[in-house]
Amino acid sequence: MTSSEQQSSSSGILFGLAQIDTCVGDLAGNANKVLEQSRLASQQGAQIVVFPEMTLTGYPIEDLAFRATFRKAAWQTANDLAKRLKREGLAEIFVIVGTVGTDREHDRPRNRLVVLHDGVVWAGYDKHFLPNYGVFDEFRIFTPGERCVVLEIHGARVGVAICEDIWQDGGPVAQLAQQHIDVLLTINGSPYEEGKGHVRQELAIRRAKEVNAPVIYLNQVGGQDDLVFDGGSFVVDAAGELLEHSPQFCEDLSYWHLPLNTSDVESAVSTIPLSVVSPTLDADEEVYRACVLGLKDYMAKNHFTGVCLGLSGGIDSALVAAMAADACGGDNIWGISMPSMYSSLGSKDDAADLAKYLGAHYEIQPVEPLFNAYQQQLHLEGVAAENLQARIRGVIVMAYSNAKGLLALATGNKSELACGYSTIYGDAVGGYAPIKDLLKVRVWDLARWRNRWADEHGEQPPIPENSIRKPPSAELRPGQQDSDSLPEYELLDQVLAAYIEHAHGRSDLLADGFDPETVDTVMRLVDRAEWKRRQYPMGPKVTALAFGRDRRLPVTNAFRE
Amino acid sequence: MTSSEQQSSSSGILFGLAQIDTCVGDLAGNANKVLEQSRLASQQGAQIVVFPEMTLTGYPIEDLAFRATFRKAAWQTANDLAKRLKREGLAEIFVIVGTVGTDREHDRPRNRLVVLHDGVVWAGYDKHFLPNYGVFDEFRIFTPGERCVVLEIHGARVGVAICEDIWQDGGPVAQLAQQHIDVLLTINGSPYEEGKGHVRQELAIRRAKEVNAPVIYLNQVGGQDDLVFDGGSFVVDAAGELLEHSPQFCEDLSYWHLPLNTSDVESAVSTIPLSVVSPTLDADEEVYRACVLGLKDYMAKNHFTGVCLGLSGGIDSALVAAMAADACGGDNIWGISMPSMYSSLGSKDDAADLAKYLGAHYEIQPVEPLFNAYQQQLHLEGVAAENLQARIRGVIVMAYSNAKGLLALATGNKSELACGYSTIYGDAVGGYAPIKDLLKVRVWDLARWRNRWADEHGEQPPIPENSIRKPPSAELRPGQQDSDSLPEYELLDQVLAAYIEHAHGRSDLLADGFDPETVDTVMRLVDRAEWKRRQYPMGPKVTALAFGRDRRLPVTNAFRE
Repeated sequence: MTSSEQQSSSSGILFGLAQIDTCVGDLAGNANKVLEQSRLASQQGAQIVVFPEMTLTGYPIEDLAFRATFRKAAWQTANDLAKRLKREGLAEIFVIVGTVGTDREHDRPRNRLVVLHDGVVWAGYDKHFLPNYGVFDEFRIFTPGERCVVLEIHGARVGVAICEDIWQDGGPVAQLAQQHIDVLLTINGSPYEEGKGHVRQELAIRRAKEVNAPVIYLNQVGGQDDLVFDGGSFVVDAAGELLEHSPQFCEDLSYWHLPLNTSDVESAVSTIPLSVVSPTLDADEEVYRACVLGLKDYMAKNHFTGVCLGLSGGIDSALVAAMAADACGGDNIWGISMPSMYSSLGSKDDAADLAKYLGAHYEIQPVEPLFNAYQQQLHLEGVAAENLQARIRGVIVMAYSNAKGLLALATGNKSELACGYSTIYGDAVGGYAPIKDLLKVRVWDLARWRNRWADEHGEQPPIPENSIRKPPSAELRPGQQDSDSLPEYELLDQVLAAYIEHAHGRSDLLADGFDPETVDTVMRLVDRAEWKRRQYPMGPKVTALAFGRDRRLPVTNAFRE
Repeated sequence: MTSSEQQSSSSGILFGLAQIDTCVGDLAGNANKVLEQSRLASQQGAQIVVFPEMTLTGYPIEDLAFRATFRKAAWQTANDLAKRLKREGLAEIFVIVGTVGTDREHDRPRNRLVVLHDGVVWAGYDKHFLPNYGVFDEFRIFTPGERCVVLEIHGARVGVAICEDIWQDGGPVAQLAQQHIDVLLTINGSPYEEGKGHVRQELAIRRAKEVNAPVIYLNQVGGQDDLVFDGGSFVVDAAGELLEHSPQFCEDLSYWHLPLNTSDVESAVSTIPLSVVSPTLDADEEVYRACVLGLKDYMAKNHFTGVCLGLSGGIDSALVAAMAADACGGDNIWGISMPSMYSSLGSKDDAADLAKYLGAHYEIQPVEPLFNAYQQQLHLEGVAAENLQARIRGVIVMAYSNAKGLLALATGNKSELACGYSTIYGDAVGGYAPIKDLLKVRVWDLARWRNRWADEHGEQPPIPENSIRKPPSAELRPGQQDSDSLPEYELLDQVLAAYIEHAHGRSDLLADGFDPETVDTVMRLVDRAEWKRRQYPMGPKVTALAFGRDRRLPVTNAFRE
């Protein structure tokens, strides 16, 4: 950890930066967190404490915004919270939270920032720019704000903005640039994707220059369905210097002191907390932690304490199990080995080793007797018989889920999902799919990173080396390898990244240098698997373009290039 | 069938109204349909032939709009089609089609109307108002047009608009009202929902008055994933009279003659085809036909010729099977009876009768031996054991699907889906779910309607009376009835309609007159089942608010009223 220079002057404003993990719809729980963090910040002398976008409601609330009783309850929560803050001796502090408002003229929802102070809801600012691309549907649910707001607090002019407002040119930031503000405060619900932290900071520096004042960028942290918010809140000044950087993937209360030249500011602060610049994470660690937090919060917010999953001995289930152990502890994992007549001995050993390293429950449920029972009735051959094995495993995993109240985890990766290389209602069963946005090569990378991290910290590497090294196989027929049906993953993943994340068409892919046969194979596989993806469990988005609401393609689609 | 007065004057313009069923992405197939219908219309003397919104690309194309190679191919298709029309002697006719365009300034897609005439793409109009509510995501993918367009054809001033443009006040219609147009032509991709035909006509009459000219409303027909377009194109005049009404749920080429007072119009028409006003369908028939067309087109456009489904003897699977028989013929249906130890004799008989009436393949696959095989390993009890029976059935249905290349149909209704009263990966398996947007009471209504229709047409009523009359049961434990777990369907469906379609909160529902216990039970069930709905197969939207992209709620959602 490195730290910026201590702000020693007591003439100025101390901001508390409350990077909290909210839960959609949990108005009371979110309000309690605001109260608690405000108390802590106040004890440290903060005069203003800042929370993420839509703090009280959680974010994103999607069509819940349309329920009038929800908006009313959110409004009541803000009012009650203001009163509680005052009742508990926190009347002096300015608490800046996000919530849902209502546009009275059109009776439509708005994405609103409010200030709680001295027992009342003090001021409101509505988000101007409503993102409606990628995973966002805000133009669908909100009406845009029109007014630009500068808060005057203890002699400081605090301009405010909400998330997308600083990503678009013009609008409130351009107006604030004319208003001699002392600081631009932006509250955010900015989902994680790899490399986005850097983009956010560059953007904030540009806006700091534009308004000629420091920018406070306060982001939420936590998992919400298929999104992970990484936190990583920060403060930059107009010279481009990073003054504060909160850690990623955890709740945090940090501080930053805004110096003011005016002498009429009365401050109760004698010792000002340091601002801390947390180091940037390694790229693999960042993605790994995003997946773990996505899973951990999905479990916590949906009241699961344990998980179950099939352990094949392969790399995908091994990585998911390692993530699950980091999310909920090994003793809350039920790993089920479900060998068939085509499973190698090595695979069974690898699965057992993995469970041992993680401290997971490990149970063996052979597939063969069940397979034979079905085959006496069904007499299946070829792919239908392969799928049958996978579906028996799906039934067993769901039996554990139902019997023990466990969250079933799907272990498919993005390369498989892209190509439809999975059995629907078989290995695809589950309530959450932690690695669905990781291409196969990245799965190996993260497994190696996780083992290396364990090594460096004197712990047992969780993932058996053999699971990392052996050629990938679904083991649904004798001697089967993934490379029988798919291009080698090193090549496949490159084509997939170009086709999916960059929306390259056939001619673009050929221009990228891929051979026509591979391009045609991959495009055909991806296009034909859309219907399976629609029914696949949710999992955390970690790339610029994930499957799911980020990429909305018709199932019925005859376009072939 | 009734017909409007014959337009006997040859001074004017004859419009061909080509209500066709396009397929998303099938540029060549859609272009061929345009050519063929243009030829037929030309033979009847039409000077202008009108096609639906986004004719060439199909509609809605969703994120396919972002693929530059797709937009390029669509543009090429329009140009080639214009040349083909000329080459085949159709240079004189004005062919009005929809397609995707590109906003050159921002390199972004646009929803475009173009005129093909004399071998070239002649004029373009871009949709102004981009619907971004309900099932629509057009603000996500398109940039809005700015220009208002009046086509001058054979002395007639033809104002044009695309779908949403006439649903919003202001915009292009308000501008056209100042331009002395002779007719307002609007091309549409307006999805079916019950009662919408009436709303469309009232709207068109209002716009006809506003522009003081007749309105041609040309809608597409056909199924596209979870949407069904019902066609039902029409022409109204400024006095509110319905001059033409095309039938619903089928392709159609109708005609309407626009009389003009000018004498300089040269027309090759000697005998003008009559305009026909098709009768409005009965409410039950309309919904039934929507479900059948949704299924039929999903099959055709995804290359399925047959279906398989479990036949329980209950009303849901019976109605789905009857719809399937109407979509693809009884001999393309594999109905699978999968009795367990809790299935009544009556249920098996009802399933067999149904298959016989439909002429469907009928196979019996007992669940008990498989259930016993699993239980030797798993020893499940309670709900887990009930789910096991349903999942064994799911595996069997999918085995038929895989082995015979059949589309598996899920038979759940909207009441079940709402309450989570189904087993995920069990009875919920399938590629398409024809009745997922029908509340249970409506399922009975449509079953009775279908039998009555058969009676009236001298055919065998397809659905066994016993399946309609007996109390609904999942038959997963001895003596089980749906009413053990759920309120009676007559009450349940009313609460669901209020909670889901009207977004009523708890206090609203109590004000609606429902008792608190029922309200709390239903709200809790609906809220907790969101994760199952996410993985449920697609099926046709027929109500004002269907599950799926029409109602986007978070899975992780702690809001409880």
